[in-house]
Amino acid sequence: MSGKPPLAPKKFPSLPAVAGVRLAAIAAGVRYTGRDDLLLAEFAPGTRVAGVLTRSQTPGAPVTWCRKLLPKGQARGLVVNSGNANVFTGRSGEVVVSRTAKAAAKLLGAPPDEVFVASTGVIGEALPVERITTALPPLADRLSPTAWPDAARAIMTTDTFPKGAVRRTKIGGVPVTIAGITKGSGMIAPNMATMLAFLFTDARLPVRVLNSLLRPANERSFNSITVDGDTSTSDTCLLFATGVGARHPAMTRASDPRLDAFRTALQEVMTDLAQQIVRDGEGAEKFVTVHVRGAASEAAARRAALVVANSPLVKTAIAGADPNWGRLVMAIGRSGERIRAEKMVIAIGGQTVARGGKKLPSYREDKAARHMRGRDINIDLDLAVGSGAATVWTCDLTHRYIDINADYRS
Amino acid sequence: MSGKPPLAPKKFPSLPAVAGVRLAAIAAGVRYTGRDDLLLAEFAPGTRVAGVLTRSQTPGAPVTWCRKLLPKGQARGLVVNSGNANVFTGRSGEVVVSRTAKAAAKLLGAPPDEVFVASTGVIGEALPVERITTALPPLADRLSPTAWPDAARAIMTTDTFPKGAVRRTKIGGVPVTIAGITKGSGMIAPNMATMLAFLFTDARLPVRVLNSLLRPANERSFNSITVDGDTSTSDTCLLFATGVGARHPAMTRASDPRLDAFRTALQEVMTDLAQQIVRDGEGAEKFVTVHVRGAASEAAARRAALVVANSPLVKTAIAGADPNWGRLVMAIGRSGERIRAEKMVIAIGGQTVARGGKKLPSYREDKAARHMRGRDINIDLDLAVGSGAATVWTCDLTHRYIDINADYRS
Repeated sequence: MSGKPPLAPKKFPSLPAVAGVRLAAIAAGVRYTGRDDLLLAEFAPGTRVAGVLTRSQTPGAPVTWCRKLLPKGQARGLVVNSGNANVFTGRSGEVVVSRTAKAAAKLLGAPPDEVFVASTGVIGEALPVERITTALPPLADRLSPTAWPDAARAIMTTDTFPKGAVRRTKIGGVPVTIAGITKGSGMIAPNMATMLAFLFTDARLPVRVLNSLLRPANERSFNSITVDGDTSTSDTCLLFATGVGARHPAMTRASDPRLDAFRTALQEVMTDLAQQIVRDGEGAEKFVTVHVRGAASEAAARRAALVVANSPLVKTAIAGADPNWGRLVMAIGRSGERIRAEKMVIAIGGQTVARGGKKLPSYREDKAARHMRGRDINIDLDLAVGSGAATVWTCDLTHRYIDINADYRS
Repeated sequence: MSGKPPLAPKKFPSLPAVAGVRLAAIAAGVRYTGRDDLLLAEFAPGTRVAGVLTRSQTPGAPVTWCRKLLPKGQARGLVVNSGNANVFTGRSGEVVVSRTAKAAAKLLGAPPDEVFVASTGVIGEALPVERITTALPPLADRLSPTAWPDAARAIMTTDTFPKGAVRRTKIGGVPVTIAGITKGSGMIAPNMATMLAFLFTDARLPVRVLNSLLRPANERSFNSITVDGDTSTSDTCLLFATGVGARHPAMTRASDPRLDAFRTALQEVMTDLAQQIVRDGEGAEKFVTVHVRGAASEAAARRAALVVANSPLVKTAIAGADPNWGRLVMAIGRSGERIRAEKMVIAIGGQTVARGGKKLPSYREDKAARHMRGRDINIDLDLAVGSGAATVWTCDLTHRYIDINADYRS
């Protein structure tokens, strides 16, 4: 892989310091050479954390570790390596995680069960933990509040660009910041968090409130994207709230209206990051928005949209700029969601193609084809049974996906 | 598409006459030019029929027609066209089917509700029914008991070779024949019958017995293959039993032990045909057998095997001859089926790769890579929770799949 893919953003956004968060990256040589592959983040005492983790039945050892730590809800550190996912590595994989957490905890002066660990990369290979424990002390020496680009780069695997996003918002009139970084390009599918995503805010919020904010935002962001329908073993999304310097009123319920702006900003950061993953989807040349409405529920709409977004026939038609709406009919038909075919509405690029169970005489295929030749493809489907709606983002399926994945490990 | 794909059989098998069945094919010009695209089959009075149809929520008009006819269970004719699937064509699509059935019924001297109709090809375009009704009379004039190769060719769409199979077996010591033809190459996924499959026997069996024989055989054949995970709107599998000349004892229960040989032969014909679809899978260069055992049930084993067989990351790894067993871990992990990761066994080409939650020291990747470079790839997974087992067949995901599907309609 060389060069930016066609959908990459122009540059990494400018992320400000988030009070209570310091970061650093280093080349630990876990698997890659000549690039950073280890990230350490330090959080101020009192930092709270919420998280969502992969629902895979073969989760990595770091996922199991995070799952154990989340109920306590306190975080002082985060260690992330790329190059090796530490998945299907048996009991020794668990030892790797606990040694990593202990080594970092000692450097940060924190208990090990407040140090979160995430790994991404090859599955089934032993992770050489000494490379991490050796790299941690110099890493701890260079912690900085603004090392966002380094941090975002260190966690990349097949990604071609680092991914970050930020929103400034207010709680009860008092300014707070939400920053985030993520990675992901292949093995991206819903039913999970995503690959890896880390969110940081200086707001002071209880763990219960953080979780209540994170889950629905995750449904509408990372759980609403797909590159290839393959759910990772390592998907991890963590939201850290340091509360450092926070002068906003105390919040005890996620439903507090004074959290509305924060909720919106969190959704925006997460959607921004999730869309960046799609834009860096393996081989992606088109960014596809599938909007389903008229479904039995929001969840039904999302499931139907994801079946469309995962269909190889739909994705190859988009790659070929072919407004092959018959494949949309097929995909929605196999979704298993309730539809009224005789009332369904199908639109491509804002133009209604079919309604009332068949193609409209007014449909102009040349116009749809012109839309399909662009970079941003819009597909709208009305299932005509209810009022559930959801939007899902995906990319096309191109030759480059095959190139990348038929030769990943060599 | 030109030339046979690498997995094509050497030649179309020699199918004998099945007493009570006559067939013919013709170029009706439904969409293609210069090739047969219409099949008529005539069945002797008294022919019984069983069938399984797509579970798509957007079935074609011919599927709806067959669903209406199956409870009566009597068949005198079958009309199949390729080039146009008559799907999402509204009320006029239903008229096309009933006019087709009526025209054929008149020629065969049969009631229209004993004439089955199936269509395959493009979705959402009006089917020019006059081309069919015009072609039916000359077609009826040339019915022959041995036109199998013509029949198999007439129903092809993106298929690159015609597909047929035959077994001779006995019921209560009396010889009977089961012959079948099928078509399918893309939009092939389970949760259905398959694309189109038609089975013919001269056995005399009641509809109830036919259905009881067909359903489990379908589960283990057409419902156990996948090319791209995309379920068709037109999947139709019909089993016609003419009973012509049948001198075997009357059978009233599918569980009658005198039907064991017939059951086995039916399974063999259907598995043979289903595997031919995989061998003609769009872009297929490798034939992949995924065997799952140790699952909670046979159905669970099949579901898990299908997730593995549908994973684009697994399929591209196979295309690249990469024994990337980490992707098997990922796929089985996301299947949602119950597994015991710490006891799971993974084998490639008969060599055990991982057991007890991690890679075996004895695993030789060079040996696995050699297996992966062959045409027939074997993947075995033991989920270690029960005794359910199932085998699923698929193909690799290659550049040719993209070529074919990014440019299907032009």
